[in-house]
Amino acid sequence: MQAYKQLEKIFYRSYQISHLQALAHWDNATMMPPESGEARAKALAESTLIQLELLEAPHVAELFAQAKNESLNEWQSANLREMNREWKNSTSVDKDLVEKKILAGSQCEMAWRQFRKENNWKDFLPLLNEVVLLTREEAKQRSSSSGLSLYDSLLDLYEPGQKSENIDLIFSELKQVLPSLTQQIIDKQAAEAFTPPKGSYPLGQQKKLAEELMKVLGFDFSKGRLDVSTHPFCGGVSEDVRITSRYEENDFTSGIMGVIHETGHASYEQGLPQMWLSQPVGHARGMGLHESQSLLFEMQVSRSPEFLSFLLPLLQKYFPDVFSKSSGDTKETLLKLYNQVQPSFIRVDADEVTYPSHVILRYEIEKDLIESNIETKDIPELWDEKMKSYLGITTKDNYTDGCMQDIHWTDGSFGYFPTYTLGAMNAAQIYRKACIDCPEITASITDGQFEPLRGWLKENIWSKGSFFEIDQLMLSATGETLQAQYFVDHLKNRYL
Amino acid sequence: MQAYKQLEKIFYRSYQISHLQALAHWDNATMMPPESGEARAKALAESTLIQLELLEAPHVAELFAQAKNESLNEWQSANLREMNREWKNSTSVDKDLVEKKILAGSQCEMAWRQFRKENNWKDFLPLLNEVVLLTREEAKQRSSSSGLSLYDSLLDLYEPGQKSENIDLIFSELKQVLPSLTQQIIDKQAAEAFTPPKGSYPLGQQKKLAEELMKVLGFDFSKGRLDVSTHPFCGGVSEDVRITSRYEENDFTSGIMGVIHETGHASYEQGLPQMWLSQPVGHARGMGLHESQSLLFEMQVSRSPEFLSFLLPLLQKYFPDVFSKSSGDTKETLLKLYNQVQPSFIRVDADEVTYPSHVILRYEIEKDLIESNIETKDIPELWDEKMKSYLGITTKDNYTDGCMQDIHWTDGSFGYFPTYTLGAMNAAQIYRKACIDCPEITASITDGQFEPLRGWLKENIWSKGSFFEIDQLMLSATGETLQAQYFVDHLKNRYL
Repeated sequence: MQAYKQLEKIFYRSYQISHLQALAHWDNATMMPPESGEARAKALAESTLIQLELLEAPHVAELFAQAKNESLNEWQSANLREMNREWKNSTSVDKDLVEKKILAGSQCEMAWRQFRKENNWKDFLPLLNEVVLLTREEAKQRSSSSGLSLYDSLLDLYEPGQKSENIDLIFSELKQVLPSLTQQIIDKQAAEAFTPPKGSYPLGQQKKLAEELMKVLGFDFSKGRLDVSTHPFCGGVSEDVRITSRYEENDFTSGIMGVIHETGHASYEQGLPQMWLSQPVGHARGMGLHESQSLLFEMQVSRSPEFLSFLLPLLQKYFPDVFSKSSGDTKETLLKLYNQVQPSFIRVDADEVTYPSHVILRYEIEKDLIESNIETKDIPELWDEKMKSYLGITTKDNYTDGCMQDIHWTDGSFGYFPTYTLGAMNAAQIYRKACIDCPEITASITDGQFEPLRGWLKENIWSKGSFFEIDQLMLSATGETLQAQYFVDHLKNRYL
Repeated sequence: MQAYKQLEKIFYRSYQISHLQALAHWDNATMMPPESGEARAKALAESTLIQLELLEAPHVAELFAQAKNESLNEWQSANLREMNREWKNSTSVDKDLVEKKILAGSQCEMAWRQFRKENNWKDFLPLLNEVVLLTREEAKQRSSSSGLSLYDSLLDLYEPGQKSENIDLIFSELKQVLPSLTQQIIDKQAAEAFTPPKGSYPLGQQKKLAEELMKVLGFDFSKGRLDVSTHPFCGGVSEDVRITSRYEENDFTSGIMGVIHETGHASYEQGLPQMWLSQPVGHARGMGLHESQSLLFEMQVSRSPEFLSFLLPLLQKYFPDVFSKSSGDTKETLLKLYNQVQPSFIRVDADEVTYPSHVILRYEIEKDLIESNIETKDIPELWDEKMKSYLGITTKDNYTDGCMQDIHWTDGSFGYFPTYTLGAMNAAQIYRKACIDCPEITASITDGQFEPLRGWLKENIWSKGSFFEIDQLMLSATGETLQAQYFVDHLKNRYL
């Protein structure tokens, strides 16, 4: 058999294991009984080991060497590139180190849950430092295999093909604009005080509304489900996408926006190239682009005046006690409710305008940490400095709402943070181009018609899988590689 | 490493794959979106292939040869025996034949769904015959590897260690007693006409009652769940047992009895030896013993006057419209309702007294089929003859309610049927012994206390896993190997 075909078989097997793992992860968060976690963890660990052994087998390197010289069509070539990337990512770090990091990460994460509550940085520091030291070693090993810089070798795990050099440029543009823009928006909004709608939103009604919105937005329920979990997520596999949300009795916005956000992720998954789902080239291009699809649905589309026009009658239908048809200014109120800007401590609660500052802060700190320009003990002071500089608020002595607020670093997921803001910027650039190519998109949203938008996204983003590298994909879809300007324009248009 | 320890590692890995598969099977039946089945089937097939390859690896035979001579404690020795059994079962049939049988079985099963509705034996016959021919070939290969007779080599897959010679003896005792006993019971019940309770049983209330009963019966919800599926089953893994039921608005008996039945299966799973769950010796002893635990809960316990005394106030609590406390004869009515005897065509709807006749009929036919004493085309005539002889009803020209009623043969599961009645007989013998050893069991059931019974079962059955062969286990638990007499005594006590 052709070496390429043998590689396809290996990755096919790995994908089928991933299918079962994805289901198990979803089940962990939604269905699993409280004391079944230990057995589940063993099943997941052993199946991951099987995947690793598939790629570590001695003949795999030989297969890659042979496949390079075989006659392949363009999708097969792209698949070979992506298989090679996965193979290198899986095999370039010592097993010993992987195990040590998993252990240190799990200890740090467990301790974090307690220490965060206690605002206890002192006892958390040595645990986090251990994770940082191990991640530096990981970066060294990855870097010597990939030839990328230390930080980029980690970034590549989440945003393949992206470079920090490029991110530095894009983020510096944002940093120049955001502080003054944020102040302008706050001043403007201060002059337009409004009363948010108050009332009770029965959970059953919220779930029904969520399902109606998912249908309208094009979620394929014949190959997916909606359930409830503590933290909303999009899981499962492309052929069976499992999204979750959670609902609060006193606030309809977060549950519903959570569902819309995850429906964006799910639409990407459901729109990937069907022929290639079991191969690396058939998977999403990276976390930044994945996040761009959820943010395109949530931020670009669903907080727009067009969507809120469409949403209002649905709110009146599902929550008649709060949204009575007779009251006058509800559409205006919705717009304000969905687009409030306010600097705050917690990233996950931040609005669209202040969110990038949180991410830039983390990106700068984690990059310096991995490159040994700073040490773990320096984090709180840097955090406070940057918070003051970017958002005008201080986190001095407040670790709980400062550098201990996130779970990401506890298990060593350095390199992930920038993808949030790359996603927001991708979303602005992609949505703008879609609306230029299909001018009917905006009007159709007012009517609750999402096919024009979905059609464009499917053709230009979803169906491409990982056929292109990220820069090529943005170029092919929007005519340019990622530019900060479109995101800044979007903020100005919406908020000023 | 010791060869035995290496074998343990192989079976550990296989068990972890089985964990993920079990979850996927549960999900298929309870949660999976309608069009995700194809992708799921691929994931299950590939992971099964991984398990097969683990056992087929060339060095495994060598490991077994070495392990025989290693110093092992008694649980390890038993585990080696069970590992060897699984290994032989997995590797003694040609892969080609396995694939052909899966294909023929799946075609036959698909066609059966349609042909059964149409009472169409003529077109079903060639498909079933293909499955029979392939299963004969399978039996030949298994037999030459195991040294068992043709039929026993299949029986061993479901009821390890059991022999048809022994079943013939036990079933012939039943056949002598059952026809006249059934007639006696019918005559007796005819003289005691009663009016079954009529009304509506809201599904939500049925589910709540089911959960309360599961708790009372000792189901550990910290390591298990109850859900709804078309056909009730007990799935998942011992550390996370997933049982299902289905409820009918007009009939509370079948949903609730289904839950109790599955809680019996689940209790066995949850009571298996915790130290050995990832190894073959830690698993249930066989289908017959598994069925004995569900039937012990359902038939021996839950249709007894003691349990029905305990159940009545619960029925009054959950269904006050039907079971008003004032009405006089409800307990008597319940007893009659739960213990009606009537020969009928359909095995799965049969009562405790007539059920064994259905099973004996199938056992005799499938054994003769596999041993080539009869041909597939002979089935309907034999079926009719035996139905007339054992139950006094004819299935002439009625294939839908006759030989086409079951799914089992369509995919070639020959050897499974006897385990139902072996289970019923095991249950009678085990429950009798438990009540002799712990005389408080019966009285405690009236009070809704199941710890005495569970304690005895855990000590004598559940915690033994597959440490003993089935005959030894029955001997150790009840002082005798399986005897038909206790089941016959039970029927006489309850129904005459």
